[in-house]
Amino acid sequence: MSNKFSIPIRVYIEDTDAGGIVYYVNYLKYLERSRTEFMRSLGYNKPAMPEQGRLLVVHSAEIQYRRSALLDDVLQVSTTVDKLGRAAMTFGQEIWRGNEIICTAVVKVACVDTSDRKPCALSTSIYQALKATNQYECR
Amino acid sequence: MSNKFSIPIRVYIEDTDAGGIVYYVNYLKYLERSRTEFMRSLGYNKPAMPEQGRLLVVHSAEIQYRRSALLDDVLQVSTTVDKLGRAAMTFGQEIWRGNEIICTAVVKVACVDTSDRKPCALSTSIYQALKATNQYECR
Amino acid sequence: MSNKFSIPIRVYIEDTDAGGIVYYVNYLKYLERSRTEFMRSLGYNKPAMPEQGRLLVVHSAEIQYRRSALLDDVLQVSTTVDKLGRAAMTFGQEIWRGNEIICTAVVKVACVDTSDRKPCALSTSIYQALKATNQYECR
Amino acid sequence: MSNKFSIPIRVYIEDTDAGGIVYYVNYLKYLERSRTEFMRSLGYNKPAMPEQGRLLVVHSAEIQYRRSALLDDVLQVSTTVDKLGRAAMTFGQEIWRGNEIICTAVVKVACVDTSDRKPCALSTSIYQALKATNQYECR
Repeated sequence: MSNKFSIPIRVYIEDTDAGGIVYYVNYLKYLERSRTEFMRSLGYNKPAMPEQGRLLVVHSAEIQYRRSALLDDVLQVSTTVDKLGRAAMTFGQEIWRGNEIICTAVVKVACVDTSDRKPCALSTSIYQALKATNQYECR
Repeated sequence: MSNKFSIPIRVYIEDTDAGGIVYYVNYLKYLERSRTEFMRSLGYNKPAMPEQGRLLVVHSAEIQYRRSALLDDVLQVSTTVDKLGRAAMTFGQEIWRGNEIICTAVVKVACVDTSDRKPCALSTSIYQALKATNQYECR
Repeated sequence: MSNKFSIPIRVYIEDTDAGGIVYYVNYLKYLERSRTEFMRSLGYNKPAMPEQGRLLVVHSAEIQYRRSALLDDVLQVSTTVDKLGRAAMTFGQEIWRGNEIICTAVVKVACVDTSDRKPCALSTSIYQALKATNQYECR
Repeated sequence: MSNKFSIPIRVYIEDTDAGGIVYYVNYLKYLERSRTEFMRSLGYNKPAMPEQGRLLVVHSAEIQYRRSALLDDVLQVSTTVDKLGRAAMTFGQEIWRGNEIICTAVVKVACVDTSDRKPCALSTSIYQALKATNQYECR
């Protein structure tokens, strides 16, 4: 997983379910924490609203479950920019426990205007910052 | 539990934890659902903000756990007004599974002004509506 | 939405986020509640484990967000069986607020053996019960 | 807060509600993460089940809310052992944002036998480990 942005996440009891494993819905929270820290790593302190008047919202998500994570596991949750448009981007994400894959996901995020919630272009600066990361990931 | 306001709540997998029981934090969500429906039963369609410019916020909560609820249980979650002031009220709440008590709680809720979040009196109409319920419960 | 299995779900404050809307991850909980009640409507009192020794687990999920639901909304959450195999099934699901679509989802669920978590065929009785529902939905 | 065990916790969107603040129920999750890491710091890798056959369960909780935490805040969540018995302990906990107190809590945790869920004494080694910490905290 070299060169990918990734954060460690510890599994707490709040994340588990009666099956004794992480409740599958909660992986989506882990994925968002990773995307949030990815944006923060680019210098955006309010990652959900990286620019005045613009909000990032999830447009669609696809997730495939491979293995179950367990209480007290430490997971690695990665984020890469797979596609980048002027008003939307698609993240590729993975959750690993050591060298075992737990799940993979594709999450499309759109930029909207906070006033009317309509699609809205990212500024050139944030577009360039995301693009730079993307190129880096793709090498 | 006659004469108490109460709603049924089904336990779903989202509510459980790796202990195979309802995650104890989630009972607080059940308690709030019951308080919310209690306010709605008094005619307030936006129970968290029953009056323009006023917001109800939780000031403190005490909860005692007696038994564990399980996946697929149907619980009864009751709400009574135990104390009523002009700008705050204390709810007594219980969660039952049939005739077994699961937990009991005391939740103090304060009325605050939405603009500055400072304590603020309830209007006479809502105060009277709550008071009427309380008297009924206490008979 | 005639002929589809559907349950009403009220939005509580626990379901919302700082954007003032339902936190998008929580729709997956609503979808599971509907699938659970769908299985219960077929006579399975322990819907996650409809048969001794067999467990239903989510294999993958795709969700598309169209509109945001708000605090105090009452939503309708539908479930249909779109594909049915001997050891897996695919559900088509929708969340509506009146005649506005909130989101759509495709959720693939696999049947596994509780002992080794390996794929395992559903019994003929549950397969037939699901198949009957499916035909009904498709008319 | 010198000498107290404390961990930093970042507020994510999953933790907030439509009031634009952390949903008050979720502070209980933060408190448990801190207690869990406190136990882990004593060398217990499975903090909810520190010893074979014994489980730690929450018996009661009291929480007082003073201020609201916001999206993207970094909080400090502390844990001290306030009372220690052979089969139960009481934790004093606080959540701070810089030098502003967010909430305080008292959480009583009991040790039960995993087989019958009845109260059960902690082993001498864990009792001593907790006692040592407590003395340290009280200096």
